This record gives sequence, C-alpha cells and structure tokens, in this order.
Amino acid sequence: MSAEKNNTSHTKHRHLKLGLFGFGCVGQGLYHVLDETPGIKAEIKRICVKHKNKTRPLSEDLFTFSKEDILNDPDIDVVVELIDDAKAAFDIVKTALQNGKAVVTANKKMLAEHLEEIYQLQQQYGKPVLYEGAVCGAIPIIRNLEEYYDNDLLTGIEGIFNGSTNYILTKVFEERKSYGDALQKAQELGFAESDPSLDVKGFDPKFKLVVAIAHTFGVFVKPEEVINIGIDRISDLDLKFARDNGYGIKLIARAFKVENKVFGFVAPQFIESTHPLYAVRNEYNAVQVQSAFAEQQLFVGKGAGSYPTGSAVLSDISALTYDYQYEYKKLHQPHDLKFTNRLTVEAFVSFDEGTAISMSDFEQFQSGYASHGKQYMVGKVSLEKLQEWSGWDGVGVILAPNATLTPQKEVAKSFSLAS
Amino acid sequence: MSAEKNNTSHTKHRHLKLGLFGFGCVGQGLYHVLDETPGIKAEIKRICVKHKNKTRPLSEDLFTFSKEDILNDPDIDVVVELIDDAKAAFDIVKTALQNGKAVVTANKKMLAEHLEEIYQLQQQYGKPVLYEGAVCGAIPIIRNLEEYYDNDLLTGIEGIFNGSTNYILTKVFEERKSYGDALQKAQELGFAESDPSLDVKGFDPKFKLVVAIAHTFGVFVKPEEVINIGIDRISDLDLKFARDNGYGIKLIARAFKVENKVFGFVAPQFIESTHPLYAVRNEYNAVQVQSAFAEQQLFVGKGAGSYPTGSAVLSDISALTYDYQYEYKKLHQPHDLKFTNRLTVEAFVSFDEGTAISMSDFEQFQSGYASHGKQYMVGKVSLEKLQEWSGWDGVGVILAPNATLTPQKEVAKSFSLAS
Repeated sequence: MSAEKNNTSHTKHRHLKLGLFGFGCVGQGLYHVLDETPGIKAEIKRICVKHKNKTRPLSEDLFTFSKEDILNDPDIDVVVELIDDAKAAFDIVKTALQNGKAVVTANKKMLAEHLEEIYQLQQQYGKPVLYEGAVCGAIPIIRNLEEYYDNDLLTGIEGIFNGSTNYILTKVFEERKSYGDALQKAQELGFAESDPSLDVKGFDPKFKLVVAIAHTFGVFVKPEEVINIGIDRISDLDLKFARDNGYGIKLIARAFKVENKVFGFVAPQFIESTHPLYAVRNEYNAVQVQSAFAEQQLFVGKGAGSYPTGSAVLSDISALTYDYQYEYKKLHQPHDLKFTNRLTVEAFVSFDEGTAISMSDFEQFQSGYASHGKQYMVGKVSLEKLQEWSGWDGVGVILAPNATLTPQKEVAKSFSLAS
Repeated sequence: MSAEKNNTSHTKHRHLKLGLFGFGCVGQGLYHVLDETPGIKAEIKRICVKHKNKTRPLSEDLFTFSKEDILNDPDIDVVVELIDDAKAAFDIVKTALQNGKAVVTANKKMLAEHLEEIYQLQQQYGKPVLYEGAVCGAIPIIRNLEEYYDNDLLTGIEGIFNGSTNYILTKVFEERKSYGDALQKAQELGFAESDPSLDVKGFDPKFKLVVAIAHTFGVFVKPEEVINIGIDRISDLDLKFARDNGYGIKLIARAFKVENKVFGFVAPQFIESTHPLYAVRNEYNAVQVQSAFAEQQLFVGKGAGSYPTGSAVLSDISALTYDYQYEYKKLHQPHDLKFTNRLTVEAFVSFDEGTAISMSDFEQFQSGYASHGKQYMVGKVSLEKLQEWSGWDGVGVILAPNATLTPQKEVAKSFSLAS
C-alpha cells in the first residue's frame, strides 16, 4: 500500500500496541491468531473485560475492568473493540478516536446504527476505523468493495450474510434436525449471537447489509429503514415444500440499484439446487457482487467462528501498521441515489386459515391452496406488506426461487391504490 | 490506501496519462471500460499497435506504430502492456521502468518467465508493476494475497485458472460438443489465446500459477520447473467414464506447502458433483485459498473476456492513482521454502495397448482394465512420470477425484527405486 510509497521495504511498518475490549469467542480467537502469526507488528498490551470473577487462560495483569486503562493510555495505538453491547461499543469507539487512537471493531450492530457518525468522526479526528470482521467474517468484502471495485459500476450485492442461520438451515435440511437443536448446536460452536433473535429474525445480516450498502453504493441507510424477515416462522410445510421441489431455503441479504434508487432487504428464499448459493453450507457465508464490467463475482468463506473472525480482525490490525483507512470512495463519487422500500416481490406466504390475508392483497396473485388448516398464497406483493405479515402469528414468508423484484412506479402505484 | 495517510479526501489522487500497447480484445475492453467509468483519474494518451493496415474504431492520431512514442514521452505516467508477444512485452516493461514509468500488464507468460527480474526492476527503479488482470481475469486474487492474507498462514491455493479450457470442458460435457467446435467457439468469444496450445496443454494456467506462488508463498519458480498436463489428450473413454460416474473434468492449477516444501502443478482432474469447483462453468475461473485461520476461501469470477479483464486492468490503473504497489510481503517473511516436484499423485492413466506403461511404474497400483484396444491403470504414481507419459501419443492422464497427493520421502523414494 502507499505508506510504502517510493519504497517497498517493511521498515515503514509501525509496531502497534493494542488495547482489546472483550475476550469472548472472537477476542480469544484474535489472541490465538495473533500469537501464532509471525511477523505481525502488533501486540496486545491490555484487555478490558466485564466480569471480575471469571478464570482466564492468560496472566491476570494483562486484564483490566476499567476502560480508562486502555482509552487513556497514550502508549496504546489501536483499540480493538469486540464486545457485545452496541451502545457501550460506540462510546468506546468515539472516545478512542477522540483520544487519537485507531479502531478495529467487529460490532455490526454498532456500525449499522452509527455508520454515518463513525464516518464523520474519522474525518474529524483523522484516525481510521476498520471493520472487515463485522461483515461476513473472513470474507474480505469491505476491502474489495473499497479498493478493487472502486471504479467498476456496481449494480448489486447479495448473499448469505449470517453463519448461524445458514448453519441451522443446513442442519435442518441435511440432518432433519429441529430448529431448537440446530440453534443450540450453533451457539455451542460459537456461531450464534448471544441473543439468537438477532440471527433468526434476520437482524444480524441486516446490520451487515447496511454496512455493505455504504461501501457498495455510497449511501448511508439506518437499520430501521431496512426490512428484515427472519427464518423463525418457517413451518414444517415450508420445509416439506422445499424438499418436494428440490429447493433449499437460505436467508438472503441483498441490495441493488435501479436507476437512482437503492433497494435492500433480508428475507428467506427458496433456492434451486443449481444456484451458486445453494452449495454454501453450515457456517459459511457468501457474497455475490454484480458489476457492469467485472460482471458476477462470488466470494465464499467462513462468516463466523473464533479464528475466521479473529483473522479478519488481524488483517485490519495489519493494515493499520501501514496506516490504511477506508476512503468511502462510492460516497465521494457524485450520485443522487436514494434508498427506498417501494418494491414488489414474488413470494410464498403461508398462514393459518382465518388470517386476514387475501388474494386482493397481492399486486399479482399467482396461485393458492389450502392444506392441514394452513393456507398458501403465491404471488407478487409489496415488500412493506410482506414485512407487516411476517410480524403476525403463524404467517410464514419465503421468497420464490429466482423471485422477480419490481420497483414500484409511483404513478402506477397510486393508480393501483385508487382502483 | 495510505497515500491517503492523514487525509481521506481525494485531492491526493493523481491524474494519470496512459500509454497503451496493444489494442486487441483486452485493450479494446479497457478502452470501453475506461470510457464508461466516471471519476477515474486516467486517460489514454497514445496506443501503440503493430499492424498498420487495420481499420480501428478510434481516431487515427491516437495510434502510433513506434513504441518510442510512448516509452520516451515524459508526459506518460503509466504504460499499459496488453500485447501477445511475451519477449517484446518484457522489453517494453523493462524500458518503461527504466524511464520512470509505472506499468500495468496482463501478460501472464511474460510475468511467469521474468517475475523475479520484474520484482528487482521495481526495487531498482522505484516504480510499480501491477498485474491483477494477468491472473484469473476479474478475480482480485493478487491484491487479496498481498493485502488481506498478508499475515494469515497460507497452506495452499488451487482452482480453475483458465477460462477457455473451462469453457471447452463445459461445452463438451453439457452440449456434447467436440473439442474442435468448443475451442473454435471459445476463440470466437475471445476467451482463448491466439495459440490454443497455451490453453489446452495447460501452459496458460501454469503461468498464472507461477505468479500466484510468488504472492502466496514468497517463492519465485520458473515456469519450466512447474509441470503442466493439458486436456488435449482426454479421450472419449475418459468422458464416458466421467459421465458414467457423475464426475466433471476440470483443468486444476494448484500449489501447496508441506513443511518446507512447495509443490505446484497443473493437471486435469475428475471432480465430484459436490465439489465447489464442479459448479464453476464456462469461462468462469475460481480460486480457493486455504489458510490456517481464515480457513477455506473461494473466489469465483470471469477469468477471461474483454470487459472482465479490462476491468481488472482498470482497477490496477486506479490503484496507481494513489501510488499503490505490491510489497511481495510473503517474500519478505523469513522462510526456507523450496519448490519441488517430488510428489506422488493418484491418477487415472489411459493408453493404447502396447504402450510401455506397466503396473510396476506405479508406486501403488490400484486397478486396471482394458477396453476397445485402450488400457486403463489407476494408482499412485510420481508426478514426473505422469508428465513424461502425458507427452506420449495416445496417453491420457487425469487425476482421481479428491486425489491423494503425497510428498516423496527422499529415503523411502530411494528404497522404492532400489527394490
């Protein structure tokens, strides 16, 4: 990189002292990866943890329970934030930048909720925040969107952004496990968030999508603006339907551009066996980038787990040794892109008989049938309506295989409302 | 990147004047991609071409037939080398660096033959040479090996490194085309090299592998040291065997590390339908990186074609606007790695009856049968022997699905020779 400008030797690389917040799955993974990596010019000076009475594998004097011991230590160059609590995490990031420290974080919720502020804080204090580990674990997607696809015209990004739900869906299909058992296993393996609803309701992949949208299209969007439909209401009938048709079910995060509009949402979808995402199993994540000239590119890698995420964090730390920072290039490219949810989506909707869902709710009704007290309707329906339904008891929403996604023409829409 | 050190504005980016050598498939692709890309701070000032009497889509005064018009023009910052002739290409690159110009090239043959010199010339003249487009087209593999996997411990890299043979094998299997027809189609589409033997005999993927080995393991190896076995001797019987067993055949380039040895070769292999590379079709390429902590990562993208390769070249040009250069980090990490071909490989060997191949040639013979005047032998055999056989008339060599690859213990080897 260009800290190496006019010289390729490594002498320019700085030796970094790290202050680590959190010593859970990822924190311990990072410690191990760092320990096993020769030539990395960084060392952990202090680790701030919450619980006093936990036995830890490292010498006690490496640990502190007061964040000031890291944030106010002039000797520490980089704050590595790996805690669960998004609010506390943001305070740490903000103070670290104010105190002239670079930051590496893997906290997708915090990033999604504060990305624009974090961008501005970087401008204000001139210190970088890197977060490759926050988006699809070991897959270097942010770095590639920033550096490699910096000029190609990106039209869409989609994929499997959550390892634990993909693990659960894999087990449910391949081993005919129940959700409960599959989820518990995922948590034992350290794939699942401490709050499983973040995963199964599609919040975790949404947070990652929000970050990806900023680096793909140069648009800041708030997580609450982005619709997420989870896998927690998928029924045995849905699973049977998928099996009978040779489909898989994947929780897909996607964003794409049509004219000056950016769309983005998270929802489960039936996936044909020939689809590139069908073969992405267990805790693996996948990201497909669609661009004008490089065309379709697929990245597959471990999206969760102690070492894969730890190695992504380490890669950011390594980048800081030559003062790398995100440029948010898409943000600086002139555009008039606006995020919107005015989208019509082709979906399968399952619900108990008597639920207030009817053919007329669909902009284009395709088929419907009833079985075992359940009703099925298939057709094109507005994304907002799907979101509303997905909040109702006993309503399952799954996108059709290769579902058509149609931006709503304001005019056409108002007509259809009038009619 | 760190030209942005202490500032994230774009003002630091330089506007580049480009001198282009060659205006074939990739050159014209680059011209189009550059033309269609807003915000890229680069323009083509001159294009040097060979043939005087060709009608070209651009104004005549953009073209020249004398390379000095570019190499001696102090106004030109970057030489973009996209010609076929490897020897002429190296002279251009060398002179460009000597004249203080940065270089972008997509010439894998030239790079493979001169990589160590090109590395030293960069040190000597302090100007970068970038070549993402030379290795798997649009897949950003070199950049990721350099910047993202700079510290993770890489143990192996393998994949489909040649778009035209993958296109041919796809057509041969899916459309039951003949080689001839499939190859011709590939050339019409601009996937195949002007000399098809570079593709079908596995030289082109070998050249890419040589470059990848330098950036994966920090080892320079000469292309003539690396064994390449092509797809040009695959017989109808091989195809039938693959179809009967639900296998595909892919031309696989791979390199991996065992203790202090690096192995690398190109050979066709039977691939099971569940293998991640099985689904990589037509001109798509794929690269799998195996590392200690990020674990398995798969990159899939267009490996050939005018725009995909053009966009990779553009991405390198864009990187030069902030003075990016490869650091060859693996080369600077202390290691005692040596490249060797002392490997035992599990393979299927088909040959005409009477060919001087016998069970005793195998280090571990597994099975054999005869059919239609052809003989088949399956077992573990030395890579050198496979290379020798693959040069004989009527001998086909294809690696077994998930073939075991066993480094030869010098001692054990000498025993087996003695016996």
